[in-house]
Amino acid sequence: MAVIGTAGAEVLIPLAAVIGIAFAVFQWYVVAKVPVPSHDSEDGGGAAAQKGRSGHDESAEDGVDYRQVEARCAEIQHAISIGATSFLFTEYRYLAVFMAGFAVVIFMFLGSAQRFSTRPEPCTYDPARLCRPALANAAFSMIAFLLGALTSVMSGYLGMRVATFANARTALEARRGVGRAFVVAFRSGAAMGFLLASSALFVLYVAINLFGVYYGDDWGGLYESITGYGLGGSSMALFGRVGGGIYTKAADVGADLVGKVERNIPEDDPRNPAVIADNVGDNVGDIAGMGSDLFGSYAESSCAALFVASISSFGTEHNFAAMMYPLLISAMGIVVCLATTVVATDLAEVKTVEEIGPALKRQILISTVLMTVGIAIVSFLVLPHSFTLFDFGRRKLVKNWYLFICVSAGLWAGLVIGYVTEYFTSNAYRPVQAVANSCRTGAATNVIFGLAVGYKSVIVPIFAIATAIYASFRLAAMYGIALAALGMLSTIATGLSIDAYGPISDNAGGIAEMSGMPHVVRERTDALDAAGNTTAAIGKGFAIGSAALVSLALFGAYVSRAGVAAVDVLSPRVFAGLLVGAMLPYWFSAMTMRSVGSAALAMVEEVRRQFDSIPGLMEGTAKPDYATCVKISTDASLKKMLAPGALVMLSPLVAGTLFGTETLAGLLAGALVSGVQVAISASNSGGAWDNAKKYIEAGASAEARALGPKGSDAHKAAVIGDTIGDPLKDTSGPSLNILIKLMAVEALVFAPFFAAHGGLIFKHL
Amino acid sequence: MAVIGTAGAEVLIPLAAVIGIAFAVFQWYVVAKVPVPSHDSEDGGGAAAQKGRSGHDESAEDGVDYRQVEARCAEIQHAISIGATSFLFTEYRYLAVFMAGFAVVIFMFLGSAQRFSTRPEPCTYDPARLCRPALANAAFSMIAFLLGALTSVMSGYLGMRVATFANARTALEARRGVGRAFVVAFRSGAAMGFLLASSALFVLYVAINLFGVYYGDDWGGLYESITGYGLGGSSMALFGRVGGGIYTKAADVGADLVGKVERNIPEDDPRNPAVIADNVGDNVGDIAGMGSDLFGSYAESSCAALFVASISSFGTEHNFAAMMYPLLISAMGIVVCLATTVVATDLAEVKTVEEIGPALKRQILISTVLMTVGIAIVSFLVLPHSFTLFDFGRRKLVKNWYLFICVSAGLWAGLVIGYVTEYFTSNAYRPVQAVANSCRTGAATNVIFGLAVGYKSVIVPIFAIATAIYASFRLAAMYGIALAALGMLSTIATGLSIDAYGPISDNAGGIAEMSGMPHVVRERTDALDAAGNTTAAIGKGFAIGSAALVSLALFGAYVSRAGVAAVDVLSPRVFAGLLVGAMLPYWFSAMTMRSVGSAALAMVEEVRRQFDSIPGLMEGTAKPDYATCVKISTDASLKKMLAPGALVMLSPLVAGTLFGTETLAGLLAGALVSGVQVAISASNSGGAWDNAKKYIEAGASAEARALGPKGSDAHKAAVIGDTIGDPLKDTSGPSLNILIKLMAVEALVFAPFFAAHGGLIFKHL
Repeated sequence: MAVIGTAGAEVLIPLAAVIGIAFAVFQWYVVAKVPVPSHDSEDGGGAAAQKGRSGHDESAEDGVDYRQVEARCAEIQHAISIGATSFLFTEYRYLAVFMAGFAVVIFMFLGSAQRFSTRPEPCTYDPARLCRPALANAAFSMIAFLLGALTSVMSGYLGMRVATFANARTALEARRGVGRAFVVAFRSGAAMGFLLASSALFVLYVAINLFGVYYGDDWGGLYESITGYGLGGSSMALFGRVGGGIYTKAADVGADLVGKVERNIPEDDPRNPAVIADNVGDNVGDIAGMGSDLFGSYAESSCAALFVASISSFGTEHNFAAMMYPLLISAMGIVVCLATTVVATDLAEVKTVEEIGPALKRQILISTVLMTVGIAIVSFLVLPHSFTLFDFGRRKLVKNWYLFICVSAGLWAGLVIGYVTEYFTSNAYRPVQAVANSCRTGAATNVIFGLAVGYKSVIVPIFAIATAIYASFRLAAMYGIALAALGMLSTIATGLSIDAYGPISDNAGGIAEMSGMPHVVRERTDALDAAGNTTAAIGKGFAIGSAALVSLALFGAYVSRAGVAAVDVLSPRVFAGLLVGAMLPYWFSAMTMRSVGSAALAMVEEVRRQFDSIPGLMEGTAKPDYATCVKISTDASLKKMLAPGALVMLSPLVAGTLFGTETLAGLLAGALVSGVQVAISASNSGGAWDNAKKYIEAGASAEARALGPKGSDAHKAAVIGDTIGDPLKDTSGPSLNILIKLMAVEALVFAPFFAAHGGLIFKHL
Repeated sequence: MAVIGTAGAEVLIPLAAVIGIAFAVFQWYVVAKVPVPSHDSEDGGGAAAQKGRSGHDESAEDGVDYRQVEARCAEIQHAISIGATSFLFTEYRYLAVFMAGFAVVIFMFLGSAQRFSTRPEPCTYDPARLCRPALANAAFSMIAFLLGALTSVMSGYLGMRVATFANARTALEARRGVGRAFVVAFRSGAAMGFLLASSALFVLYVAINLFGVYYGDDWGGLYESITGYGLGGSSMALFGRVGGGIYTKAADVGADLVGKVERNIPEDDPRNPAVIADNVGDNVGDIAGMGSDLFGSYAESSCAALFVASISSFGTEHNFAAMMYPLLISAMGIVVCLATTVVATDLAEVKTVEEIGPALKRQILISTVLMTVGIAIVSFLVLPHSFTLFDFGRRKLVKNWYLFICVSAGLWAGLVIGYVTEYFTSNAYRPVQAVANSCRTGAATNVIFGLAVGYKSVIVPIFAIATAIYASFRLAAMYGIALAALGMLSTIATGLSIDAYGPISDNAGGIAEMSGMPHVVRERTDALDAAGNTTAAIGKGFAIGSAALVSLALFGAYVSRAGVAAVDVLSPRVFAGLLVGAMLPYWFSAMTMRSVGSAALAMVEEVRRQFDSIPGLMEGTAKPDYATCVKISTDASLKKMLAPGALVMLSPLVAGTLFGTETLAGLLAGALVSGVQVAISASNSGGAWDNAKKYIEAGASAEARALGPKGSDAHKAAVIGDTIGDPLKDTSGPSLNILIKLMAVEALVFAPFFAAHGGLIFKHL
């Protein structure tokens, strides 16, 4: 009936993944051609510290010794890379213990659902047939969980390696022009994006095939176990985001409060003891954290779609090609993103500073338009003309073009979210300019206006998400929602490229400053960075939007698997869950905000202590003790990520075990609808404050010049706003989308247990 | 079967109301015995302006001319009273137009539900019988709406009159000791509290009896129309809160930013041109706004309970005494609060500053304990032993002690909320002290910690509300929820007393400062005010908690009336509504925050202009132009209250008319669960910042002294936090509870229309 059959799917999916990986390696290869000397050159150490004295003396620019600058670059890059690697390895050691423990929990809970019986069970959705025993599902869910966790860790780690490999190279290329630097930063982002998108697809594909060897035609059991992959991915992402977020913001806030506000030295000045920790933080928080996060979303939306499909006609009729529709969409996405990337790197060259922002924005638009065609191709080649989908106990007749609309709805909703986010966080538009303007009357009005902008920026994205949900829900029930999420993530390779581009440029600027490159180079990297700030906000918008869709899809899958007949708000159990669920994002944010605050306090005191007690530090004749600051960030982030992590991981388990499946359903819905709002407003308030500060610093308009220059009262007020926004936009906000996804996928994985033994309190009341 | 029958109810309810009103008049009479000279004494004008020079010269204290001080007091009181009265009258003129317009909308919508037919209709819940025509319901709903609106306006106005009558008297009594001042402020609060609680009960009681003349035994129609009373009350409350909130915070923020931060003059200094506007604002925002708000909650919870009861066995069997159970609970509440008040005013005298806070806290505890007994008495005397309640189409058998538990659950949840709010906003405990301590590193960490405290303060109240909801929902369905709300509000007279006490003390402090009273008097009023800050936060906690319960009860009534079978989150219409509903509090807050921000900007510029252009103003030889500042606040608040008001009033109408009853149900649930969190966290963050500042100023501990004194860097950071908190705690936060109540009651009133004609878009799709 459909053009592409089983064999086609079996070939095309791994092929696209391999092409994507090859493309990533090619980008890396091109970036690697920028030469950076070996880092252990002789004079690097002292020179970096001495730069503080001469770096801002513009008359010295022509006298820059390029060999020395390159050596310093290499040295700093090496320090950042070592710091980031050692932090990630320490973090992963903690997480390995957690992973092992939680794997056992999964096995015990799911195994106990049928008392560890090794006998085949009647299938959940077709009791006349026999399926694999629950114990096998417990074991395979555990394996899938570990596989997801490992892939997530690998995604974060590789992303970090690419970024720390690229930052010095971007700084060095910036000497030769803004266009060349842009291409290096962008190619590096693309290397990370394609590597991640392709390997996520590849591992999932291989896992499905390997699990299939045991499960045979018990597809229900197979795809139920596969959901562990999403759980593993997202639980690592949670700790990565929270830990990395605390790390980077403790360092950033601490460095800014003493360096910029008290000591009046520029950002990224090598005399600031927290500067290395700050740069390390960008890589472990923004890069590794974002990588794990989007991998988690991707894995979960695929798992949700596969699970729902397995209990629909694709599954019961064993139509493998149609079952693989979600993976084929992702495979098509890799090809589309590849074409899109070539436009930025080879076809439309960036020559001036003004072209950077539009070039990045164009990437999103091009990939969205091309992908719409791609979705149509896959939909009409792979899917039968009509089929039935599982719709909470009923069967729903669906046509293939319905699914085309579902995927496209998510894709275009993502575009709307991206563009709205840009409007509210870029200093080219009125909202950020009004926030900057409110600095005239001080920090208080700046904060009030910034909060208002964040709140306002929620409106359109929520309507976009609600519309996508309504349309895809109506057309194809929960499968439609999962596909909409996949649609939004189908261009993930491009999304990650422009997202990783931001921290790479940020680091490049830091390296340019620290290695004593001429002022004009720093101006170029600043321009790259300002565009990166906005793309980072757009990336967070995508992450949140897709998280909302993913969690709803997982929520639907959970409700199906746990056998909840209806999630009626008018049931006291559901409503109590809804109310408490809506509170969880606040509880979680309270923890993370406080963690950043207290870690930043410790950092501020250490930096002050060093400035006060190390003679010659301000003059640049002595070197600060970077290692202590790195240690403060590391310790704070490892210690403080446990409580918020435990809150998220335990809430569904406690709610499901004690209060039962209905309360848990309410909890998930509440956390979803409330968390999305908090996450969007926190990210965008933070983005608006950051760019309001940059607007004043850049002084590109008469209004901006009236507020500036750096060091004016208005600028100081803007710095306060920026600092407040730091934990909101880089710790709390982006972690919240993991909160809502993770709780939903956890509920789904543990659904067999909750269905069998949940609600202990009510049973004994 | 029950001890108290129809005659008993007909006597006891009005009796309690009359006793309450008499008690209020008595309190007013006692307060009035403090003499204040006629305001038009000769030298008042110039003297107030001159005080700036000598007010802080402590050596001059003994030389204070008391006759002159009293004359100044009278003059300032008069200015505040005139300002508040003229603002309220202007506001009410606008609102009269709105009320008239909306009354027509109600009539047209409800009338059109059955095409303006004047023929009797089959009853909604018993189609075999004939009930009054829909057109009559439309007319009576409109009348009830107008009645509610008028009572709300009257509540706000009378509260403001009492407060402006009491503030100078409190200041004057403060010369004779802190205990005497406390009693005056507290008695004034009680005058307002009892007047409002009693008249709300009385008007409702009279309306029921008058409507009954027409409706006869069609109780369904009667209590359906009566819900208009709640709608009228809450819609006025919305504009009162938003308008008053913008007014007061524009003046407050503007006065502080220039006066305290730029010019280094103390709070309430008469040289500050915005000082009169600030004091007027306390009365129109905190007093009139809060009065209207709690009246609205009271009216709505009564209406929700009555509506549900009317379609249960009380209604169908025409058991009048049992029908009047909600009103009898309120009547008992008046008696209990009367006894509680006597403890504070006569039995346990306050002698020192330290006793103020505990005395106020004791009021809440005493009234809660006594009321629990009161509820038991009413429940067992009035209710039949067992009866059936309407439970979404089913009938549920309920025993009388179930209802006792429902009302008590609400009452005690209120106590928990009050105590938790105190813990997070009083500077006697660790959270506020930690916020103050974070000012060491500047405004940014102060804001981060304050936001975290606000988020954290949500946890316990939400669990308390969820528990009360679960218990009362389980025991007595939606009637139980309405009763829990009534239980929380049953001690409203005491709640309002201690709530109104705060702004009265605040104003008294302002008058003491402006009229040049000795320093020691100002210290006493400051102590009264600090306790008032915490009680204000507690009052907001009550308002929000009761609003959550009320809206859920109204939501349940709406669902029953609109004939929605189930509000299933797994329906696309419901989920889309839920998501958008959860967004509305953010949209609303964005508008109000921005309004305060931009009005404050205008105020700052006017105050700066006056300081720069009026010669001798800083020296105290010239008088500022108070009127222009009053005008800025007035204009801003009247202009800016329209958009947020329209958002709240139109959302349910648009959702119901275009998308139908299910989407509207989702919208209400989403707004409820999300709005509660935003409201609590906003109020408590604001309260924590305010008291962190006061903690540093008072310098009562070694930690606090290390941060201070006034004017230190840490104190400046604390002032910034306080200013940011102003719109959060006095504009956005408290308005949000009206948002959730009002949307729910509006949905209920328009339910017949939505049920008949709602969902236009889906009908034509």
